Amino acid sequence: MLGVGLIGGSIGLASRGRADARVSGYDPDERVLARALALGAIDTAAADVSQAVAGADVVFVAAPVSALSETVRLALADAGPDCVVSDVGSTKRLLADAGADERFVGGHPLAGAETAGVEHAREDLFDGAVWYLAPAKGSTAGVLYERLHRLLVSFGARPTAIDPDTHDRLMACVSHLPHVLANLLVTQAANLLGGEESPRVPAVGPSFRDATRVAGANSAIWTDIYLSNRDALIAGIDEFAASLKEVRAWLEAGTAPAVTDWNERARADREALLGAGLAGGPVHELRVSVPNSPGVIAEIALALGRAGVNIVDMALSPSEDNRQGVVALWIRGDEHAGRAGELIAELGFPVVQA
Amino acid sequence: MLGVGLIGGSIGLASRGRADARVSGYDPDERVLARALALGAIDTAAADVSQAVAGADVVFVAAPVSALSETVRLALADAGPDCVVSDVGSTKRLLADAGADERFVGGHPLAGAETAGVEHAREDLFDGAVWYLAPAKGSTAGVLYERLHRLLVSFGARPTAIDPDTHDRLMACVSHLPHVLANLLVTQAANLLGGEESPRVPAVGPSFRDATRVAGANSAIWTDIYLSNRDALIAGIDEFAASLKEVRAWLEAGTAPAVTDWNERARADREALLGAGLAGGPVHELRVSVPNSPGVIAEIALALGRAGVNIVDMALSPSEDNRQGVVALWIRGDEHAGRAGELIAELGFPVVQA
Repeated sequence: MLGVGLIGGSIGLASRGRADARVSGYDPDERVLARALALGAIDTAAADVSQAVAGADVVFVAAPVSALSETVRLALADAGPDCVVSDVGSTKRLLADAGADERFVGGHPLAGAETAGVEHAREDLFDGAVWYLAPAKGSTAGVLYERLHRLLVSFGARPTAIDPDTHDRLMACVSHLPHVLANLLVTQAANLLGGEESPRVPAVGPSFRDATRVAGANSAIWTDIYLSNRDALIAGIDEFAASLKEVRAWLEAGTAPAVTDWNERARADREALLGAGLAGGPVHELRVSVPNSPGVIAEIALALGRAGVNIVDMALSPSEDNRQGVVALWIRGDEHAGRAGELIAELGFPVVQA
Repeated sequence: MLGVGLIGGSIGLASRGRADARVSGYDPDERVLARALALGAIDTAAADVSQAVAGADVVFVAAPVSALSETVRLALADAGPDCVVSDVGSTKRLLADAGADERFVGGHPLAGAETAGVEHAREDLFDGAVWYLAPAKGSTAGVLYERLHRLLVSFGARPTAIDPDTHDRLMACVSHLPHVLANLLVTQAANLLGGEESPRVPAVGPSFRDATRVAGANSAIWTDIYLSNRDALIAGIDEFAASLKEVRAWLEAGTAPAVTDWNERARADREALLGAGLAGGPVHELRVSVPNSPGVIAEIALALGRAGVNIVDMALSPSEDNRQGVVALWIRGDEHAGRAGELIAELGFPVVQA
């Protein structure tokens, strides 16, 4: 295990707890390494890459994007001929192009992107998570790939083979591009609201808050992510700009049917994507008008919890003074959504299915 | 009161409950009108616009965007010389240009955009809400403006004068453009994921979910909104497209410092906007790792509620199998945020301040 932060530490915990493996770990940050050892994420703390890799069947490189290529190169140099080396980086093409070594299989677990630090590591971090595996082109590492795959299944993950190009285009579209748009939107609003004409900053609505939630994500991580996936991201930006131009033309021409069709298509696309992205039936959206006092969310969540209804996702849109608001709840399955609606109505809050 | 849905009904309730006013209401939908009467949102149900407006000191037009101009025209034709006529539409320039009548003052309360229907009407819907007032150019309706302003204050709203152009550019930026971007993003992802190369729809992350939350909003409302504010929206799109081009150039050139600066600026802009948009100190973001079982949100919300700590905003990012996740909580004020962190840690959940 090279790098024992959130992801590396969780891999260590899962390897020890679920695959009965012995884990040797190395991290350039001594405090992080000591913490990982104390938390039981690794069996032994290695002095360097070479010592950590010695005799390993599987090596995971969980280093920052900027140190990834070099650490993978070091690991491959030290690893035995029957050792599979993988990484957990958010882009896959660069490493795949660089890694002619057939012992290398690129990886990317879709988990843990929201926090950092080994103190958040968990044995169950990868439960149910898609874990993309992108072997280098021409890789013949069948037995090594299979060993890696089986290990990931033992973690509870869902290893999914994907070619590196498709992976990077996918991440550009569903993760990197949304971050770019959020950044641009927030700065455009700040420029508008900071001007002489609007000395008073008005309320920004829930759509703006949602759209800009990821604006200005940790630069130490994200500058690397943007640049390491820049080819796919640029392609995504170009496609987006072309679509934006199309909408602009409909607006300029005032063609209402085209605008409506486009909007309805987006509605269907969102339902298809978010419905399909979650197992166990379609997700329904309930909107509840509530006073925004401290106990209300708890009251609703408790009532649903008692009935065994799980909340897939939740968004609270407060009014400006935080005295009232609308809670959007996403509930999976017709039956649970119906039951949730009943329970919320019984609590006395107006609720509609959106 | 012309139109007695969510907004019209709430204006009726607030007028009766807080301003001791007598409210005559009209709605082209007889069932809605009867329901408003039953709910106490109006004192009397009028047979037509003329009857509703007769003898009124203030007339609110709360009709859909498509019927707004015509209904305002009818109201002005029937209203007395000392009656102020206002509306609640989401764009202001078109009406301002059309309304040479000095009895007209355009209005737009920032409330209630998330639900529809008179059954959600509330007397306190406008508590603390900014209510933009955009008098037509050259309007001399001082006494009428003042009467309207005082009435809105009695509703608990914060009437804020704004010129129609600035209003529409502002709404284009913080509301209409985010909707456009969400639509485009979701369709781009659907196109990519529906292709031959990716027969399997993978997980979409929390950034994608947040960014597309408003995608495909009710077409019956939004086609009208997009088109009625198309000039400002097109200007917003053009500015956005130019910024997107700039970022694309940095990515293509691989200039990390420019990317980092841009990202940091977005971070600062978001903090300034969202911090300033809420009264009572800076908003802190806490990230909590939790098992995603029904009772956990309730447990956290209850603990904060008991301590009097209010949750300004909340976003739950579940893992794909919904067995775990990260909850982001926005808490206002240093002291409350610190207390929230302590309480959550006491419950045994890892928490970091983002």
